[in-house]
Amino acid sequence: MKVDVLTLFPDMFYGVIGSSMMKRAQDQGFVTIDITNFREFSQDRHHTVDDYPFGGGAGMVLKPDPIFRAVESLTIDATTKPRVILLTPQGVPFTQEKALELAGEPRMIMICGHYEGYDERVREHLVTDEISIGDYVLTSGELAAMVVMDAVVRLIPGVLGNEESTDTDSFSHGLLEFPQYTRPRDFRGWCVPDILLSGHHKNIAEWRHEQALYRTYTRRPDMIEILELSLADQQRIRKWKQGIDIPK
Amino acid sequence: MKVDVLTLFPDMFYGVIGSSMMKRAQDQGFVTIDITNFREFSQDRHHTVDDYPFGGGAGMVLKPDPIFRAVESLTIDATTKPRVILLTPQGVPFTQEKALELAGEPRMIMICGHYEGYDERVREHLVTDEISIGDYVLTSGELAAMVVMDAVVRLIPGVLGNEESTDTDSFSHGLLEFPQYTRPRDFRGWCVPDILLSGHHKNIAEWRHEQALYRTYTRRPDMIEILELSLADQQRIRKWKQGIDIPK
Repeated sequence: MKVDVLTLFPDMFYGVIGSSMMKRAQDQGFVTIDITNFREFSQDRHHTVDDYPFGGGAGMVLKPDPIFRAVESLTIDATTKPRVILLTPQGVPFTQEKALELAGEPRMIMICGHYEGYDERVREHLVTDEISIGDYVLTSGELAAMVVMDAVVRLIPGVLGNEESTDTDSFSHGLLEFPQYTRPRDFRGWCVPDILLSGHHKNIAEWRHEQALYRTYTRRPDMIEILELSLADQQRIRKWKQGIDIPK
Repeated sequence: MKVDVLTLFPDMFYGVIGSSMMKRAQDQGFVTIDITNFREFSQDRHHTVDDYPFGGGAGMVLKPDPIFRAVESLTIDATTKPRVILLTPQGVPFTQEKALELAGEPRMIMICGHYEGYDERVREHLVTDEISIGDYVLTSGELAAMVVMDAVVRLIPGVLGNEESTDTDSFSHGLLEFPQYTRPRDFRGWCVPDILLSGHHKNIAEWRHEQALYRTYTRRPDMIEILELSLADQQRIRKWKQGIDIPK
């Protein structure tokens, strides 16, 4: 996959794309990431990228011209139209499904804005996707672009060595993850549950499933609502609602 | 505010905390950010921070000991208990309200994990908050910590020069932002709506409100559902549902 990022703050990216999984994915040839400062595509003397909004109001708006030129310069030889992604609080909420969808694309161009917003013509005539990573306000689109990039790149087949790792992630099965424990067995008097030391794989799997269900039920009832639960799980939840058989 | 980040990948942070708003907020004394590698707090010879999960399964689990020691070394002189925040997909979804709440705290300690997960005893006996930035899987907690930090730090009074800027942000009033336009008026034949050039402030405000409402109605019906809309807005939406008076 080829990823291009258009930003006014290229320095924000190098630490993130030069570490950990993202670095490995590039070193092994699974992804190429290029960071472009779209200020270079402004044609006026002062390299202006923003201007006052028509109609008044606080803040500045990113001008359409430098962003259009930057995208066009990157795609001048493209044979297929790449996904052009605008990071914006007005976008569609980002999900694991969207990450999986994007992981199948040969190319993504991500546009990161600062300031009040983008000129509407960028949204209407240049981008293919508007994505929001959550219902909170960030200073800029840069962190959102890094989040989307990380979630997408790790799903490219081969990037994660241990294939099982993506499969047992939270959300893959619609439930939050069960509690995990590692050494020491007794840490400051807080002990690992006996069942995990029992060696009974079937009982352990059942305990983990019940814990995952209970955690999701208490923390994310919105996730439970959209699941098709087994009859046994439906009964568990009916009991929990009555305060019966709450897992420890 | 004092922010401490516990991470195994300190290099991921410097570009982000050294740019833009975060740099200004530190330079002006609104926030102090320290990045600590909690591997330094591992007491065995190989500085191990993770181990196999009890009960079997793929992946590794972060050991409790180095994380407890790191937090304790940072808080040894603390007079009040700081917020200790775990970034995890199992956390409470992060929102603008949570950002506002955290912006009033004197201190945050953020714990970022890689690998499969944290030992449950970290959740039960060390952290005060578990936060998820969205329903997607990231390689690690580092990007989530940066997102939370950015959203919180910009809300510390004085950090954003233009106070109006936080006030007109998306989500502050429960609606997505209205379309913005800047120069040129005619960009490649796509023109700024006449009303924004009219100088009629009342009409412009009304147009913007209707656009914001319509954008939220089409893109985020979940946000509309939880709003207390005016009678006029309720009527607008009833019409849109019938395909009448759709804004251009």
